[in-house]
Amino acid sequence: MKLPVKPQPASPETVTTGPLPASRKIYAAAPGAPQIRVPLREIAVSAGASEPPVRVYDASGPYTDPEAVIDLSAGLPEVRSAWLSRRAGLVAAHPRAVKPEDNGSVSPDRLVPPCPARRQVLAGQPGAPVTQYEFARAGIVTEEMAYVAARENLGREVALAEAEQRIADGESFGAGIPAHVTPEFVRQEIAAGRAIIPANINHRELEPMIIGRNFLVKVNANIGNSAVTSSVAEEVEKMVWAIRWGADTVMDLSTGRNIHNIREWILRNAPVPIGTVPIYQALEKVDGDPARLDWEVFKDTLIEQAEQGVDYFTIHAGVRLAHVPLTARRVTGIVSRGGSIMARWCLAHHRESFLYERFDEICAIMQRYDVSFSLGDGLRPGSIADANDDAQFAELETLGELTKVAWAKGCQVMIEGPGHVPMHKIKANMDKQLATCGEAPFYTLGPLTTDIAPGYDHITSGIGAAMIGWFGTAMLCYVTPKEHLGLPNRDDVKTGVITYRIAAHAADLAKGHPAAQLRDDALSRARFEFRWEDQFNLSLDPDTARSFHDETMPKEAHKVAHFCSMCGPKFCSMKISQDIRADTLAEEERQKGLAAKSAEFAAAGASLYVPQA
Amino acid sequence: MKLPVKPQPASPETVTTGPLPASRKIYAAAPGAPQIRVPLREIAVSAGASEPPVRVYDASGPYTDPEAVIDLSAGLPEVRSAWLSRRAGLVAAHPRAVKPEDNGSVSPDRLVPPCPARRQVLAGQPGAPVTQYEFARAGIVTEEMAYVAARENLGREVALAEAEQRIADGESFGAGIPAHVTPEFVRQEIAAGRAIIPANINHRELEPMIIGRNFLVKVNANIGNSAVTSSVAEEVEKMVWAIRWGADTVMDLSTGRNIHNIREWILRNAPVPIGTVPIYQALEKVDGDPARLDWEVFKDTLIEQAEQGVDYFTIHAGVRLAHVPLTARRVTGIVSRGGSIMARWCLAHHRESFLYERFDEICAIMQRYDVSFSLGDGLRPGSIADANDDAQFAELETLGELTKVAWAKGCQVMIEGPGHVPMHKIKANMDKQLATCGEAPFYTLGPLTTDIAPGYDHITSGIGAAMIGWFGTAMLCYVTPKEHLGLPNRDDVKTGVITYRIAAHAADLAKGHPAAQLRDDALSRARFEFRWEDQFNLSLDPDTARSFHDETMPKEAHKVAHFCSMCGPKFCSMKISQDIRADTLAEEERQKGLAAKSAEFAAAGASLYVPQA
Repeated sequence: MKLPVKPQPASPETVTTGPLPASRKIYAAAPGAPQIRVPLREIAVSAGASEPPVRVYDASGPYTDPEAVIDLSAGLPEVRSAWLSRRAGLVAAHPRAVKPEDNGSVSPDRLVPPCPARRQVLAGQPGAPVTQYEFARAGIVTEEMAYVAARENLGREVALAEAEQRIADGESFGAGIPAHVTPEFVRQEIAAGRAIIPANINHRELEPMIIGRNFLVKVNANIGNSAVTSSVAEEVEKMVWAIRWGADTVMDLSTGRNIHNIREWILRNAPVPIGTVPIYQALEKVDGDPARLDWEVFKDTLIEQAEQGVDYFTIHAGVRLAHVPLTARRVTGIVSRGGSIMARWCLAHHRESFLYERFDEICAIMQRYDVSFSLGDGLRPGSIADANDDAQFAELETLGELTKVAWAKGCQVMIEGPGHVPMHKIKANMDKQLATCGEAPFYTLGPLTTDIAPGYDHITSGIGAAMIGWFGTAMLCYVTPKEHLGLPNRDDVKTGVITYRIAAHAADLAKGHPAAQLRDDALSRARFEFRWEDQFNLSLDPDTARSFHDETMPKEAHKVAHFCSMCGPKFCSMKISQDIRADTLAEEERQKGLAAKSAEFAAAGASLYVPQA
Repeated sequence: MKLPVKPQPASPETVTTGPLPASRKIYAAAPGAPQIRVPLREIAVSAGASEPPVRVYDASGPYTDPEAVIDLSAGLPEVRSAWLSRRAGLVAAHPRAVKPEDNGSVSPDRLVPPCPARRQVLAGQPGAPVTQYEFARAGIVTEEMAYVAARENLGREVALAEAEQRIADGESFGAGIPAHVTPEFVRQEIAAGRAIIPANINHRELEPMIIGRNFLVKVNANIGNSAVTSSVAEEVEKMVWAIRWGADTVMDLSTGRNIHNIREWILRNAPVPIGTVPIYQALEKVDGDPARLDWEVFKDTLIEQAEQGVDYFTIHAGVRLAHVPLTARRVTGIVSRGGSIMARWCLAHHRESFLYERFDEICAIMQRYDVSFSLGDGLRPGSIADANDDAQFAELETLGELTKVAWAKGCQVMIEGPGHVPMHKIKANMDKQLATCGEAPFYTLGPLTTDIAPGYDHITSGIGAAMIGWFGTAMLCYVTPKEHLGLPNRDDVKTGVITYRIAAHAADLAKGHPAAQLRDDALSRARFEFRWEDQFNLSLDPDTARSFHDETMPKEAHKVAHFCSMCGPKFCSMKISQDIRADTLAEEERQKGLAAKSAEFAAAGASLYVPQA
């Protein structure tokens, strides 16, 4: 079924589909693994431009492929099934039965129907390798590794000398960006703990992606269910919309009713990794009283979500009893929801966090399904005043300790980071995280570089995100304009994702990623040559670029005008500059011609002077 | 006449007036100069908060003072008249008569009427000190210097120890930020060429401000006239609107008809420095043909604008004939309008730029009225590919040379900077500018950190602006979302200014400006204590913050709710965190009580053990 690009009124079929302007989905074969088809977006360039189309990374999944059949009830194709079926350590599990409290004990008339797309639930056998980390340590290159290697290269072959020159031209602060990403390089990075491929064995619809300092910087978008859910498609659409604009992973932070069933619909239709914060659902199961949380309800929630296919869990196991008093004199105390829940629990029981004490058991569950850890920063600063304080860094030390435990148990790990941090304190966060957590990937929220701009916190944080991405953060969690004020709507989500794509790309450029600048250059050439359509199409948000241009120059003829509304034809620097270029190059050619003539003359032994006898 | 806050349909009276929410205009006396009244904005905090109101820098002029009488035809009060009348070197000039070509030879029926607010035109006598630089070098503290000293302190006295601690906590890359700004410090900075007070002696309506690395980072907004001007107020409103949201200076980049008369209306009503690019008007006078430009028409334009009171001129004297071929192989050639005009002129005549050759004469004119130089970067890069190239840095070397000439002639100077620059190449720009231009203030456009986001270039450039501001740039020229696409409308101007206020403030925070963090802290306390109204009012854009909050929680009761729509009451980390704080502090008190008891017991010589005989 082909669907129109524009979103439709909510109904089970209407998520946003269709390609972006001038774009087509292509599938590149992974080198050495022709059965692996890696999605890319190819942006066409005007026929007159005499340059090739531009290939860009594409996280949007089948939704932007006009050839794809989208049926939310059936879910996306299980691209990973064949790969997983060859792994001896995986067996069909006897899945846990869905309980009423999984959906917040919603009344039957308000229950969102379960997603009909049923999948066999897999689990790892005891002792068998399951996770990407375990395979990597064992020297085995998985299909996921081959897939992300091809994906990171954007299907492009940059000449080795050029790639090396671009890397040398960048500043990566000691990262080890390769000229070309090979499957073996991916394996090594995962084995070293420097990268993860969040890929639950029960999320076989996933198009694998990698998070690590030596790969392209990634972006996460958060979504959450509505208090009153009008339709399943509306919930799935939040994810589809976020990945359409470039979110690489999506965290489902839902807390209300129907949470289990909606998550199922999202997972079955998600081509990107889905992350959650299981403590949110666990808290719902104990009616919102942190003191009533315990290991059993938490463990049950982990298994519930792992069997559904959640790819990474935020676990706030670094919030220890002894850390809580360190926050008492902060300007903004504890601002992480998970952090505050666990701090409340610790104080209520006057004992060590059960997440910390049961960490081994948590690892065992995560390993069985290859759920990656996102070790939560429950004590991240919520204001400039609290940045880089004792509470924050004490927790980071604990996260470093837990990272090593998780690795020993075969799990993939990334580390969450702040928060609110002024510019001059950002690098210390990155350096400390690298040192403390053994180079496990850093995954930061912003950071926001000032507290005084509610309504613009995508910008206050976009500044910090670009910088920390440059310094080495592997994934940036987006912040929308509604941060601190309310729930983001559709426009806010798009603004947040685009802002963070800017930050991630600015970071890739600064790090010297070999292929990053190709898109900038293509767009700049289009700009210089007044190829307006190309300029729109090559941009992160073609629709907005076009509509802004049309506000002052709406006519179709203006799309080929050799000037724009900003300066008008008389003052157009680009136009003058083109004339200058033509003149200068013509003069150079003339000089070259003269020189050639002169050389010819000299070579012929001719001279103006007759040699004296 | 008191005017409503909301803009009215265009008519000569309707510019935006009235205070920002919860704000009142206060006037602080300058220490040692009680006749000088420095405007500040005082933001009230809820009665229950038990903390003082917050004073912030206020560039908005009388328009936000309900007590002010606003009459565009009369112009603003001449706050500087008394100061200037005491300066012996200034005399009434015989001003140049307005010529038809000054207004683009517009037909009489379309002529914008001249502003009735006539002012006596002053000029410096030959050999007499006129400029702030000359007074500073002579060891004289002017009223303008005393004014900006008080203004930079925000009317606040930060305790010395605290100020020094905040400076030490920051990273200013070798800037010399003082704990407290004194008039003598201002004088020294100006005498060293490290700061300027753009203040034409014919712009006596000006509320002086300072631009320099050791002061708060400033923001410039550009405006331009419309092709069809419907009213004078509409043109003046562009300036009033920009300064309402925090622009410290405004550049009038108009190029069309009525340019002289509209500029007169703007200047007579501008409390901020006004900058222009005189070559634009000169080009209009020769019908838009760069080749027809000459020294006479340019000189005439300089005098015309200097007599009107323009505070700084962008002069592209660094674009030399020899530099032009360096741009021929660039991806985007020359993107500065002024730069391309001068390059075209140089090539057309195959001779050195008349701006460069006549630079001494230009200085003489600038000195006579104290017009500050903004030495233009006509060869700034217009794409990531062209950043930090030979053309750019060759021009910067020339600007360094010209800076020294201008200083020798008694002029104030700042230097314009890029442009499009990836993050890792930004600091080199700052370092090279400091070294080459003898620490003259740097005034940069962005820089944009990627080319791929037209429609979001306020963000791509806000990232670069925050960074280069941190590194030492004194003023940031804003970029609006319409950059590269069209003319900014009212909303775009506001978005651009707010984005750049964020960048400037983030830079001030990172540099360790003693008072910068006070506003962040006040807002964060309001946030933590659920003082929603205070959170809105203390923000850079209270209207947007409030409206975003109201989208999901519109009721008045929600303005005092101890939670928000993001997490709801059960999950509110701030609420849980407040409980934790109360618990922890109570426990600490209890422990302290026990310790005190114990100490008391010990002091009394008591012991549980009876000493053995």
